[in-house]
Amino acid sequence: MSVNDEGARIAFEEAEAGLAEGGIPVGSAIVGSDGKILGRGRNLRVQNGSPILHGETAAFDSARHLRNSDWKGATLYTTLSPCPMCAGAMVLFGIKKVVIAENSHMSGREEFLRSHGMEVVVLNDQKCVGLLNEFIEKYPEHWEF
Amino acid sequence: MSVNDEGARIAFEEAEAGLAEGGIPVGSAIVGSDGKILGRGRNLRVQNGSPILHGETAAFDSARHLRNSDWKGATLYTTLSPCPMCAGAMVLFGIKKVVIAENSHMSGREEFLRSHGMEVVVLNDQKCVGLLNEFIEKYPEHWEF
Repeated sequence: MSVNDEGARIAFEEAEAGLAEGGIPVGSAIVGSDGKILGRGRNLRVQNGSPILHGETAAFDSARHLRNSDWKGATLYTTLSPCPMCAGAMVLFGIKKVVIAENSHMSGREEFLRSHGMEVVVLNDQKCVGLLNEFIEKYPEHWEF
Repeated sequence: MSVNDEGARIAFEEAEAGLAEGGIPVGSAIVGSDGKILGRGRNLRVQNGSPILHGETAAFDSARHLRNSDWKGATLYTTLSPCPMCAGAMVLFGIKKVVIAENSHMSGREEFLRSHGMEVVVLNDQKCVGLLNEFIEKYPEHWEF
């Protein structure tokens, strides 16, 4: 399995684990320029009430005591198009490429990322669309907050 | 003491507490549109190694289980001009006004905030400049990371 596939697989695993906990099923993985997994995480808004732990920020937060330069050139995989905070974090840490599983549930800050020189790929992954559909059907009150 | 003064005072207290812990002295407070303190926090990068807990994000994170609409129209006080991640968080949560104690140590995303309709005030507060000067002199390795 290629490095790219591994990042997308981990992001999906994180989203699935979130759904199993009753949480918003959005997951992320960050793969360093050397192919090493730097971080992984999932949205924890329902689980612990944090407003800032989205999939992407949780993945950054899973790696402690790194230097900012350790993130430089990394690829970030996320199952949902990123919000302004998460897009800003990608700019801050010098992410080079962003792989987005789907953007049908949220049209995120993709142009903002491109305007900061990032390569942005959208996969239109129907497995990820399905996870969020399942969540929204089960817990509409946690989606429209 | 006016609500405005209280927000700036709390942000400064948080920054001071950070310096006392050997941390990056940047603090924040968020005051709701009704004048109630919604959150407060400080940069925790040195203390716990988190890459995402800046003063502003830590202040959002200090308030759990709020609805996004609870933040709408709030004023955010920060002792240092915000990075792209924190500026994005302010957009995400609908912050109306941002009061920045100083921007001499970092020229942050003030234009980005203005372009999203926020009022941005810079105080040029020399007490906050002094706190960061003291930190950079003592711990240059934690500033240039």
